[in-house]
Amino acid sequence: MRNLTLLTDFYQLTMMNTYMRSNTGGKRGIFDVFFRGKAETSYSIAAGLEQVIEYIQGLKFTDGDIEYLKGLGAFDGEFLEALKSFKFTGDIYAVEEGTPIFPYEPILTVVAPIFEAQLVETAILNIINHQTLIATKAAKINRVAAGKDVVEFGLRRAQGPDAGIYGTRASVIGGCMSTSNVYAAKLFGITPKGTHAHSFVMSFASEYEAFMKYAEMYPDKCLLLVDTYDTLRSGVPNAIKVFDYLKGIGKKPVGIRIDSGDLAYLSQKAREMLDAAGHTEATIFASGDIDENVIASLNTQNAKIDAYGIGTKLITGYDNPSLGGVYKLAGIIENGGIIPKMKISNTKEKLTNPGFKKIYRIYGKNGMAEADLIALFDEEIDESKPLTIFDPELTWQKKTFTEYSVRTLTKKIMENGKPIYVSPKIYDIRSYSIKALAEFDDAYKRLQNPHIYKVDLSDKLYDLRKGLISEYLNL
Amino acid sequence: MRNLTLLTDFYQLTMMNTYMRSNTGGKRGIFDVFFRGKAETSYSIAAGLEQVIEYIQGLKFTDGDIEYLKGLGAFDGEFLEALKSFKFTGDIYAVEEGTPIFPYEPILTVVAPIFEAQLVETAILNIINHQTLIATKAAKINRVAAGKDVVEFGLRRAQGPDAGIYGTRASVIGGCMSTSNVYAAKLFGITPKGTHAHSFVMSFASEYEAFMKYAEMYPDKCLLLVDTYDTLRSGVPNAIKVFDYLKGIGKKPVGIRIDSGDLAYLSQKAREMLDAAGHTEATIFASGDIDENVIASLNTQNAKIDAYGIGTKLITGYDNPSLGGVYKLAGIIENGGIIPKMKISNTKEKLTNPGFKKIYRIYGKNGMAEADLIALFDEEIDESKPLTIFDPELTWQKKTFTEYSVRTLTKKIMENGKPIYVSPKIYDIRSYSIKALAEFDDAYKRLQNPHIYKVDLSDKLYDLRKGLISEYLNL
Repeated sequence: MRNLTLLTDFYQLTMMNTYMRSNTGGKRGIFDVFFRGKAETSYSIAAGLEQVIEYIQGLKFTDGDIEYLKGLGAFDGEFLEALKSFKFTGDIYAVEEGTPIFPYEPILTVVAPIFEAQLVETAILNIINHQTLIATKAAKINRVAAGKDVVEFGLRRAQGPDAGIYGTRASVIGGCMSTSNVYAAKLFGITPKGTHAHSFVMSFASEYEAFMKYAEMYPDKCLLLVDTYDTLRSGVPNAIKVFDYLKGIGKKPVGIRIDSGDLAYLSQKAREMLDAAGHTEATIFASGDIDENVIASLNTQNAKIDAYGIGTKLITGYDNPSLGGVYKLAGIIENGGIIPKMKISNTKEKLTNPGFKKIYRIYGKNGMAEADLIALFDEEIDESKPLTIFDPELTWQKKTFTEYSVRTLTKKIMENGKPIYVSPKIYDIRSYSIKALAEFDDAYKRLQNPHIYKVDLSDKLYDLRKGLISEYLNL
Repeated sequence: MRNLTLLTDFYQLTMMNTYMRSNTGGKRGIFDVFFRGKAETSYSIAAGLEQVIEYIQGLKFTDGDIEYLKGLGAFDGEFLEALKSFKFTGDIYAVEEGTPIFPYEPILTVVAPIFEAQLVETAILNIINHQTLIATKAAKINRVAAGKDVVEFGLRRAQGPDAGIYGTRASVIGGCMSTSNVYAAKLFGITPKGTHAHSFVMSFASEYEAFMKYAEMYPDKCLLLVDTYDTLRSGVPNAIKVFDYLKGIGKKPVGIRIDSGDLAYLSQKAREMLDAAGHTEATIFASGDIDENVIASLNTQNAKIDAYGIGTKLITGYDNPSLGGVYKLAGIIENGGIIPKMKISNTKEKLTNPGFKKIYRIYGKNGMAEADLIALFDEEIDESKPLTIFDPELTWQKKTFTEYSVRTLTKKIMENGKPIYVSPKIYDIRSYSIKALAEFDDAYKRLQNPHIYKVDLSDKLYDLRKGLISEYLNL
């Protein structure tokens, strides 16, 4: 892994320098990573934790870094000296990758000397914001694809190499089974997939010749791209000729790929032509500017598509390319106690939740997730007693659970700078993610106007927050 | 730089394997990178060439890569052997970084054995698509900011580390002067900027104490973030007290930053308060979900803002996060001649321009760009003779230039796999970009319904294209 120690905002360094001189950098702070609410955001799928752990373990200012910073003329000698031996010594808590999470829930919490916690803010946000965005988009697409294979195809349209590499990882966490990206496939152990391009067809004297060459090379994996010239007049007929040849030598053709045009119409016609020629087992793979809305529409049109390749719209999170996760101070630890902190802003959405917190997920007796509760870290829930929760804004909206169970989503990941958690393999994260999302009623997951999942605050947290606001107003 | 050799689509490798067995991989192909048209796309600012050159020079399959590919069971032994000594031996032509370009113009052309040209497709597109997207967004933002300083602030919201690092580079190509991203600042020699965050204010007992600590540390660079609690009731009054102190010790305060709320109103009120306290030279810096449309609106509201920090909307190209550049076969070189190739699709926008081409930019006598002409590479224009161009779709729409000059945008960048071009320094690319964009009338650059800049085809290219379509239809 590259040394990403300088992957931080300049103001982290000027603040650290100031903390050091004013002797406040040694105090431990509690910082939460969370997403703010948006009407269209129902759930997100947490992702990126494995890379956060790697990043933190790799922190090391090189001599060249120190020289560079010295040359900027903005830092004390003592500060630069301290950077030479910089290490992260704090604790990290997080929800596991693949977990569905909701606005304002702390998906990762850093408890560390402020000096250290400040440096790592930017890279942690960068990693979590990106992978969670793409895992969420992948989950939405895979849900609508309803079990049909979705291949991640977006490397060429990703926002730089890492966006392709880690975006692919996140796509699998969100439900994709394979990718076109060879780098990511090797790095994470994902199945690589792909056959040929339009240029391949065009480099031979005819489409038929190109298809035959490909079939001879890959008789068992023969998926032919049929829209280089004309899908129904040229591509499918040529593919059928080649499939006839393959059958003749005892091979089973995989099928065709359509990358442009009216996918509903073309897939239906192609299906008819393939079936009429006896190739009922040949599959139809669709690609080209597809997203969850296109798939939903193709479903209603009875398109004859067996699998999807999704590029741009998945790898960039096209319709909302940033989740806007933030990293906010929730408390300072002094003399063994927590002084809760809260941002009070002119903008309501920018208010934060104070204190050291964890997330409970409440399940009904049918095993479905009913609500989440953000509580203070030392709060325990006695499942043998009824539990009443209330909306933190419309406080008269209450709900009481009698038969229920709770699961703590927040886990300790690093302790004193050392990982105490082993990231699961990518396909295990995927399985967990699919299972965890299945615990939510479809109403929370629909594409249009999803039902808003309850994320309430515990009584203690609610009172703490209210107290801090009153205290500020009386200043 | 990391070894990005496997940063390619799996189908590139299956195609290369097939080309090798069918002895067609050695033929030289001509591949163009270009963007397709969208109504909202007026110009784009070409960027990423320097990283393409680095990537190509760094190509090297490691033993681990070969072992990995072998394990997939999809490739010939002879092919895997060939990868061990893989090198790019072709030529590359491109427009220089910072050049305004338009849909369908070949911004980069690879002329190389198809075997090699296929491998590099994906990474070239990834790099050019990303950096051109961000440079273009930065150019739009900086144009509306009309000379006010725009600082790139987006690392935490970028789609992974590279999106932050190379997105920052592209932002400077598009006109930004500085960045918060320390990694990118060091790597490319960009000025880093930044002061402090809300958490800094919250870690002290009071906002005033935090401001004073910061002012003592950075008396000459004191820019204070005033919206942690309440911009006008707390932040600005506290900043004024600190500025009074700074003036008392002979220092000049830099100013304040507002990161939330109604930026027009808050900046006007803050300006009044600062002026009334005698701090007329203190500047007002605005950040928080700003893009070119917000700046245009702030301009009409007479907001009192001196500089902008732009994060999410710039670093992700928020409203259109992918340019969709493609890499298309335009010809095959056989026996010293070019066999032109063209993609003919059911979708009109997916038709391509055949042949080996270059771009001319036509300037009127006032030095302003009037139109571009895509021509075959060996076509020369005699500026002493009138030049008539015509719209390739509405062919009766003609324009004749009598007093004009032309500039060839296409340059040879690599020859036989070796670079013959030295990338300019980042701020020189920025200067060139600003100058080149100033050659276009404002009508082409306005945010709403920009006038469509003429990009026509030379007579020869038009005829070649028409001939290939007829030939295909008569098949």
